[in-house]
Amino acid sequence: MHKLSKIFQPSLIIPKNASVKKQDVTSKSQRLMLEQGLIRQAGNGTFYILPLLQRAVEKTIALVDLYMQQHVKAEKLSLPMLTSAELWRQSGRLDSAEAELMKTTDRHGKMQILGPTHEESITALLAAISPVSYRQFPLRLYQISTKFRDEMKPRFGLMRAKEFLMKDLYTFDIGPEEARQTYETVNDAYRQLLDAVGVPYVKVSADTGLMGGTTSHEYHFPSEVGEDQLMHCRECGKSCNQEVLANGMDCKQCNNANFSKQTGIEVAHTFILEDKYSKALGAKFLDQKGKPGILQMGCYGIGVTRLIAASIEVLSSEMDIRWPLALAPFRVCLIPPKKGSKEESQAGPWLDKLYFEIRKLKGLDSDVVVDDRISMTIGKRLMDAKKIGYPIVIVIGAKAACESNELFEVYNQLQEKESVLGFTETLLEIDRICNSRT
Amino acid sequence: MHKLSKIFQPSLIIPKNASVKKQDVTSKSQRLMLEQGLIRQAGNGTFYILPLLQRAVEKTIALVDLYMQQHVKAEKLSLPMLTSAELWRQSGRLDSAEAELMKTTDRHGKMQILGPTHEESITALLAAISPVSYRQFPLRLYQISTKFRDEMKPRFGLMRAKEFLMKDLYTFDIGPEEARQTYETVNDAYRQLLDAVGVPYVKVSADTGLMGGTTSHEYHFPSEVGEDQLMHCRECGKSCNQEVLANGMDCKQCNNANFSKQTGIEVAHTFILEDKYSKALGAKFLDQKGKPGILQMGCYGIGVTRLIAASIEVLSSEMDIRWPLALAPFRVCLIPPKKGSKEESQAGPWLDKLYFEIRKLKGLDSDVVVDDRISMTIGKRLMDAKKIGYPIVIVIGAKAACESNELFEVYNQLQEKESVLGFTETLLEIDRICNSRT
Repeated sequence: MHKLSKIFQPSLIIPKNASVKKQDVTSKSQRLMLEQGLIRQAGNGTFYILPLLQRAVEKTIALVDLYMQQHVKAEKLSLPMLTSAELWRQSGRLDSAEAELMKTTDRHGKMQILGPTHEESITALLAAISPVSYRQFPLRLYQISTKFRDEMKPRFGLMRAKEFLMKDLYTFDIGPEEARQTYETVNDAYRQLLDAVGVPYVKVSADTGLMGGTTSHEYHFPSEVGEDQLMHCRECGKSCNQEVLANGMDCKQCNNANFSKQTGIEVAHTFILEDKYSKALGAKFLDQKGKPGILQMGCYGIGVTRLIAASIEVLSSEMDIRWPLALAPFRVCLIPPKKGSKEESQAGPWLDKLYFEIRKLKGLDSDVVVDDRISMTIGKRLMDAKKIGYPIVIVIGAKAACESNELFEVYNQLQEKESVLGFTETLLEIDRICNSRT
Repeated sequence: MHKLSKIFQPSLIIPKNASVKKQDVTSKSQRLMLEQGLIRQAGNGTFYILPLLQRAVEKTIALVDLYMQQHVKAEKLSLPMLTSAELWRQSGRLDSAEAELMKTTDRHGKMQILGPTHEESITALLAAISPVSYRQFPLRLYQISTKFRDEMKPRFGLMRAKEFLMKDLYTFDIGPEEARQTYETVNDAYRQLLDAVGVPYVKVSADTGLMGGTTSHEYHFPSEVGEDQLMHCRECGKSCNQEVLANGMDCKQCNNANFSKQTGIEVAHTFILEDKYSKALGAKFLDQKGKPGILQMGCYGIGVTRLIAASIEVLSSEMDIRWPLALAPFRVCLIPPKKGSKEESQAGPWLDKLYFEIRKLKGLDSDVVVDDRISMTIGKRLMDAKKIGYPIVIVIGAKAACESNELFEVYNQLQEKESVLGFTETLLEIDRICNSRT
């Protein structure tokens, strides 16, 4: 049984003379996650992911794996975190990305990059086995790993940190048309993944920037703390990141300049890279006639820790965290009666019954936590549960102690609805909330 | 359906003038893993973990999670990979560990360590919330993450790499007796975990070395390429790492010097650290009377990638990889008839039936791969399956094409046994092999 009293969740109340200064807390999600014991700051832009949040991270990883493997048919691997600086020199990015690259030099004097992204690394892998038969393509390889960026000013907690968890997918095709098809497939999977997360998002055309290539789209959660300015053309309906407009301020599609604007938090990014890396590093294929050609690439990122933090930023109030159902550390929290209360003896036995039956519902076998801090009143624990934001909270209180007609208070925190339901109805309601959308 | 033709598995045949030189290949497991497309070398001591091996890594992680969470009652979290060099200075290890530490300096001039281990980091976390009520203990926190070590001479592939995946558990107790109890609990879980892996191992008392503390044990797989000399006292039966004997050559238990010796590959290590880190960094608790005290610590490592490589080193022949059943990328491989063969039409339909029914067996729902390279003969594919070492290989061949009495060739590669079985018996045999030990 997952018991709340056994979970390491050191909450942070920031006193006036604290080592974490108020000015270090630059977003609502960062403050809520600190206050609720989900993260602790380690250094400037580095964080401890504490056990409750670790559960959310692992759920997010599982969700990303699902969409990458089933929808994109991508294969998972692990690239080394250290990439030879020499490869970055060959791609031409060692100087252009200089400021944000973290480097380390080994005892033999070789400089390595702590990868912020891995185009060079994966292309070198393909180059080492080149030329590869056309039959092997499309090739879609991804990893989920820690990335590093030497931010000038880390901020917003997990949303702009020096270390962050990212899913990076690299694709290889034998021609531009095939690469375009792959691009559509991955963007389609991103749409489905973000729909499953359920936080409102917008897709905009974007600048290719340091990555290079020709085509790029970003996915944003609209939010006041977003660092990107999104432009929605009122004439043609197209959306883009303001960066795309560069100097001109007209819509690239229809040449009008009638935009609605909003700021967004970038959670995913897609690029058609063409042959920028494959040409520089020599990643080739052999066509049906045995003629060699340069591979066409794409790359596709999702910020895993950023996706979680941005979701919390968008969904939460100033007081209470709210999670996307799919990413919550536990989807159900049970609150049994206070120790020594008059309902304890009669309502108490329902705890085991509910716990046992809820775990039998689809997908819920390890997703229920019991707030066993029974020296505290139900009211205090319910307030805590609202703050941390478990999507479903069930109170086993006075109404459950009624001998002939036991009832439970069911809080659906996704929709801020309360209901009082019998045993079977409670189970049906949990199943409905958790499984109707999947 | 997992199809072998869709798995990125670039095999390596080392030609005379190859960039990977023969002298770089220093162990059997490294050679086999390179030849079979499980790893590729990226740099000196860094490797790509390719998709088949990635599956084994994720299985190993799941197994370690299971034993940490269910047996040790430990909670999973993530510590930052970068630790402030200042913390290492405070613990006194910045100089003593100097040679093997990888470092990076950020744009603000702050030096950080790419963590080879995280005693400083986790103790700083506890210190930041100190003093912690005695009720919170025992506290057992672990992570599974990439660690870095600037090896003078990386070798043996994944067994001594500059980047490696490690499970590191840190425990906090309110007194030495409680810390000793935790030590027993974790060692007991290690025994059960290694029993589940099934590779023969020995537990020896070990030097505390750079880690400090008072008590330490190592778990080794006996192997010729092992870098540690293990001493088994013929008089009292105790075993230790030769390092423990230091200058004297007598058994520390019985003062005799009658040893049998063997070399071993260290796969796990346990330490009682006492208050070395908690005192230096100020990690404290409050006892029942409100009096503060210094926490007692332990740390416990398992080399995840090393465990896999060492298993392959021990179990494999010079030609053929063998995996522990629990860690194999796929436990079952199905080989259907060759395209255009006379058995294709009659035996072919059994593929879907077998695939479907095997996946219904306990724990096997995503553990079956089909060698769909049907332009190749069954014999060639069977040879490949023997090289890569799937624990169970099922051939759907001429015998399966017999209309009245279909039979399948079942290869149990764990015991190098072959049998010819009917449909139901094949399923029972797979279930017996996979589920009788768990």
